[in-house]
Amino acid sequence: MTVRVAVAGASGYAGGEALRLLLGHPEVEIGALTAGGNAGSRLGEHQPHLLPLADRVLEETTAGVLGGHDVVFLALPHGHSAAIAAQLGPDTLVVDCGADHRLSSAEDWTRWYGSEHAGTWPYGLPELPGARERLRGTKRIAVPGCYPTVSSLAMAPAVRHGLVDGEVVVVAVSGTSGAGKSLKPNLLGSEVMGSLSAYGVGGAHRHTPEITQNLSAIAGRKVPVSFTPVLAPLPRGILATCSAPLAGTADVRAVYEREYGDEPFVHLLPEGRWPTTAAVLGSNATQLQVTVDEDLDRLVVVAAIDNLTKGTAGGAVQSMNIALGLPETTGLSTVGVAP
Amino acid sequence: MTVRVAVAGASGYAGGEALRLLLGHPEVEIGALTAGGNAGSRLGEHQPHLLPLADRVLEETTAGVLGGHDVVFLALPHGHSAAIAAQLGPDTLVVDCGADHRLSSAEDWTRWYGSEHAGTWPYGLPELPGARERLRGTKRIAVPGCYPTVSSLAMAPAVRHGLVDGEVVVVAVSGTSGAGKSLKPNLLGSEVMGSLSAYGVGGAHRHTPEITQNLSAIAGRKVPVSFTPVLAPLPRGILATCSAPLAGTADVRAVYEREYGDEPFVHLLPEGRWPTTAAVLGSNATQLQVTVDEDLDRLVVVAAIDNLTKGTAGGAVQSMNIALGLPETTGLSTVGVAP
Amino acid sequence: MTVRVAVAGASGYAGGEALRLLLGHPEVEIGALTAGGNAGSRLGEHQPHLLPLADRVLEETTAGVLGGHDVVFLALPHGHSAAIAAQLGPDTLVVDCGADHRLSSAEDWTRWYGSEHAGTWPYGLPELPGARERLRGTKRIAVPGCYPTVSSLAMAPAVRHGLVDGEVVVVAVSGTSGAGKSLKPNLLGSEVMGSLSAYGVGGAHRHTPEITQNLSAIAGRKVPVSFTPVLAPLPRGILATCSAPLAGTADVRAVYEREYGDEPFVHLLPEGRWPTTAAVLGSNATQLQVTVDEDLDRLVVVAAIDNLTKGTAGGAVQSMNIALGLPETTGLSTVGVAP
Amino acid sequence: MTVRVAVAGASGYAGGEALRLLLGHPEVEIGALTAGGNAGSRLGEHQPHLLPLADRVLEETTAGVLGGHDVVFLALPHGHSAAIAAQLGPDTLVVDCGADHRLSSAEDWTRWYGSEHAGTWPYGLPELPGARERLRGTKRIAVPGCYPTVSSLAMAPAVRHGLVDGEVVVVAVSGTSGAGKSLKPNLLGSEVMGSLSAYGVGGAHRHTPEITQNLSAIAGRKVPVSFTPVLAPLPRGILATCSAPLAGTADVRAVYEREYGDEPFVHLLPEGRWPTTAAVLGSNATQLQVTVDEDLDRLVVVAAIDNLTKGTAGGAVQSMNIALGLPETTGLSTVGVAP
Repeated sequence: MTVRVAVAGASGYAGGEALRLLLGHPEVEIGALTAGGNAGSRLGEHQPHLLPLADRVLEETTAGVLGGHDVVFLALPHGHSAAIAAQLGPDTLVVDCGADHRLSSAEDWTRWYGSEHAGTWPYGLPELPGARERLRGTKRIAVPGCYPTVSSLAMAPAVRHGLVDGEVVVVAVSGTSGAGKSLKPNLLGSEVMGSLSAYGVGGAHRHTPEITQNLSAIAGRKVPVSFTPVLAPLPRGILATCSAPLAGTADVRAVYEREYGDEPFVHLLPEGRWPTTAAVLGSNATQLQVTVDEDLDRLVVVAAIDNLTKGTAGGAVQSMNIALGLPETTGLSTVGVAP
Repeated sequence: MTVRVAVAGASGYAGGEALRLLLGHPEVEIGALTAGGNAGSRLGEHQPHLLPLADRVLEETTAGVLGGHDVVFLALPHGHSAAIAAQLGPDTLVVDCGADHRLSSAEDWTRWYGSEHAGTWPYGLPELPGARERLRGTKRIAVPGCYPTVSSLAMAPAVRHGLVDGEVVVVAVSGTSGAGKSLKPNLLGSEVMGSLSAYGVGGAHRHTPEITQNLSAIAGRKVPVSFTPVLAPLPRGILATCSAPLAGTADVRAVYEREYGDEPFVHLLPEGRWPTTAAVLGSNATQLQVTVDEDLDRLVVVAAIDNLTKGTAGGAVQSMNIALGLPETTGLSTVGVAP
Repeated sequence: MTVRVAVAGASGYAGGEALRLLLGHPEVEIGALTAGGNAGSRLGEHQPHLLPLADRVLEETTAGVLGGHDVVFLALPHGHSAAIAAQLGPDTLVVDCGADHRLSSAEDWTRWYGSEHAGTWPYGLPELPGARERLRGTKRIAVPGCYPTVSSLAMAPAVRHGLVDGEVVVVAVSGTSGAGKSLKPNLLGSEVMGSLSAYGVGGAHRHTPEITQNLSAIAGRKVPVSFTPVLAPLPRGILATCSAPLAGTADVRAVYEREYGDEPFVHLLPEGRWPTTAAVLGSNATQLQVTVDEDLDRLVVVAAIDNLTKGTAGGAVQSMNIALGLPETTGLSTVGVAP
Repeated sequence: MTVRVAVAGASGYAGGEALRLLLGHPEVEIGALTAGGNAGSRLGEHQPHLLPLADRVLEETTAGVLGGHDVVFLALPHGHSAAIAAQLGPDTLVVDCGADHRLSSAEDWTRWYGSEHAGTWPYGLPELPGARERLRGTKRIAVPGCYPTVSSLAMAPAVRHGLVDGEVVVVAVSGTSGAGKSLKPNLLGSEVMGSLSAYGVGGAHRHTPEITQNLSAIAGRKVPVSFTPVLAPLPRGILATCSAPLAGTADVRAVYEREYGDEPFVHLLPEGRWPTTAAVLGSNATQLQVTVDEDLDRLVVVAAIDNLTKGTAGGAVQSMNIALGLPETTGLSTVGVAP
């Protein structure tokens, strides 16, 4: 089976990571590469790490260029996916790395993104209950946000099995690539290195409703989520600390072991070991650990992912594999690049 | 007024920062410098940034060497301060940068540190209610831990004025110097750079009882604190995200403005601005911001300090100034070194 | 004596560092702060580390605003200083942190910068032979570039005393703040962290003629200089490795000791110790070490500075002090902020 | 073909990188893993990024454990390889990632390493003239040092084709993993981050004779090499700046294009593009660029590798492939992990 894949937004970080993974995918042939303002230039100018594709010229992001592929990855700014997807036809598998089709509530979409809702696609987080069924054979995938990926994986077993109630508090520290290649002063190396900063505090980050949606759907009740992202001086990686008041007396560790024991990309660490983002750099693995604060009867889960791999392009490839009927782990690795 | 100051533990990070600040203190003359294993070597081998003291030779940490100074800074591993302090006499101002005399509960001490409690000294966080009174004229100062400093400053107005109830959740991201110069594999540059890691999760970090003690004393009730520290790839700086359920309808911002409006070293940022650790690097300032998550009725405070300055040696100098009757800001700055 | 100082370009890195130092200068009162595109905004939005000036509003960079001060620091893009300086009158001390007035050869200027030469001002590197005489009482100072500062200090004694002949090879590794706050993709944190890159290779960097000019003037002959700058993942600091074939059999170390023994801001390290940029962070010190490669009869000098302090704003304040007749070290420190 | 490979020194950086690559090698089955002080512990404690091997227990490094494999990787401190190799028998392919068998001169070995010379093995830098012939079918491979790899690749075409004469000056900036996991104060994250430092200056680094040996062998004359390594704040990557006086008027770029046009792991960048280490992170590629400083008639070559991949374990796998008669690129990639 050879799958021809086009990537729109190939000069950005999500597009570049998709290409890095697709280059190592044994069933994939890389087709058209498109860009916005960078159309017309060589890929090598923007992604010098993708040597085998260095001389490929970026084309305009149009349905004409993207059409005719088996799969199209959209790594575009939010709000741009729906129009392109509509022109790609129902036989093309469209994998949207952007936010456009993640939220099920049109009201939430409009509140948080300000535009009209483009509709909801099957959500590409296979480890969530029921997700694989919805992804199998689909022609449209909404790739989750990076923070929702790690936060949902961290808390899904707990809310599913009623281990916690009350508010879930998530503080997630992230590398800078999650913010993309946008030229903002606060993303300059001189500003970022040697500094930690918070942003989108107090429920102001757009990933808040996505995390809330995921956990609430699993719990079958509205799960209130307090989410604060922190920017740290590293290019890749998210470490999320998630906690909530314990409910009941279940064996927390046993629940997580059972829930994730067979998952290829979620790894509960042995007791006493805590996750680091370096261990998942460039890999599709999630590493996590759970504990209970006995003084407070509070569950604390810490989880690490690579925001560009499991948090974006790796998760996208994993979901693509399911949609195409390929083995889910094809072209993906649990081996990180460290130190 | 010339105050002669000795520093024990001069080759470590806390001792080095104390010396950096004391070199710029107009009323201080630097006396004996002592060390443990590094005794006998030049300070310049360990602290090449302290050029004016580079040729000073480190002496053994004994009461004989440290005696006869007006002030002695102890920057020693925990458990070592009491024995030395006992020999220094009641006229010497002893500033303990270690943990030994911070906790008021002997039971807490023994639970968290495993040895016998050495007693409680006036707590060197002048911004807390009543602290300045206790520091004035004292001959013994317990310098707070770095995490307790930033966490307590972040939440003190809220618990004092009943703005919150329920559990206070603190996730604090720190640079590596807080862990000292100890030679541990996980502190190697190759391990730290490009990585985020959690440790002491689930109430397992020794700063948990100290934060709890501070907030509870202010509130006049037991304030439960969930504390998780995260290690990030930068040498200095702590960014703490602290949150708790709102109680009542007070104007949060107004309370913080009133509480900190006259504080020289705590700065509430204008609305819309969020703190960064780079802005306080090398300075004694705390920068913080408050907000309310309206969906959850939850207060969120983010605060940044330099863990070695305001979080250790700068806070120590500030308290020393008060104890000696000097203007509190002498030799301290609110100007950071950035970018 | 109170000197009123205005800073043009106060929202950039050079301007910010000038203000950081001027805030600690006992004879200085800070006057007008101006900017280009940022005029009208609070300084705190751009320089949150300069807390005492956070509420100052940036004005337009005009002679009207800058006039009436004793000293004006110009921290502007190259090519913008001459026009403003011409309007400031001969009684104002103008300290140009830009490149406009550094080169003595109009031909060199036009070759490297492409515009008409604005003239040559006394060169603000006091440690070079004859420099202090030219700076004393001057009303115009050309602040050296950061690479020329460290390279010239590293090699000046060698070329002055005929220790070397042949080409001087300089490879200087720099933090990113030297590139300023310009919004270029290659300066984004995600690109810079975890990466090393070369630029301006093969004599293509504009600091090449400045280094050549300095060393040639000292040597009294044309000294050929091969200069390669390398960008490394840190905000501040330059480490320059400079080497050249030995000539003669002089005691290299003795020459450097004699040359720099009395210099307050140039420190030859004890044998066996090598400079690090961390040790000079935020300080006006240069730390250097010399050695001879005995197999090759080649002199190798390694020198470290903070590119924003000694390499820009600190060097500027040092020269200002000389020009105003103040003690040269006023408001400057040899103590770095480490770790 | 299935090749059983054992790795000695599996808990270190070189051993870990070998395992990372071998896990992705389609013809390899990973056998015994051994360690020194870490024997008896799980690999996951030391290499949490190697998830598929996390539960493997490290054995003692003995010939008994290592024997019976087709290939043995030795990633041991220098001086330890010869004794083990002698016991492994002539049918086992021994790949020595250490220094023991690199130097052809016993005198050089003793001068630089202080012990008796263990002999010289075929040198695992396939791109050097004649190297592939010597590696084909060999049972012993000396993996080059990281600095010699990048420096030799940078200058080999120039010295081979007489493009340069005189001294070759190499200044190579490296990440910290090249120094291994040894617990030295100067390798702590707090010391490394935000700092640049030089070491082994003036021909004092042990890689100097290895670079000299390589270039001299290619040139057929003694090529004098001035080598200075610089430590920078990143875990992986070396950027080497190499230069020498031009000889003759050959078209430098054409020579490099011809020399490396068919090499799978050496990539001459298009004109105007300069290498970055981020682009080769985790990949076996070398990216380089050449230019001529016209004012000086000096060749300047800048080359980037990942010190652990092409500079150690990737180069080792490449040479292993040749020795075993496998396609040279098996299990290796030219795709880096960026940003």
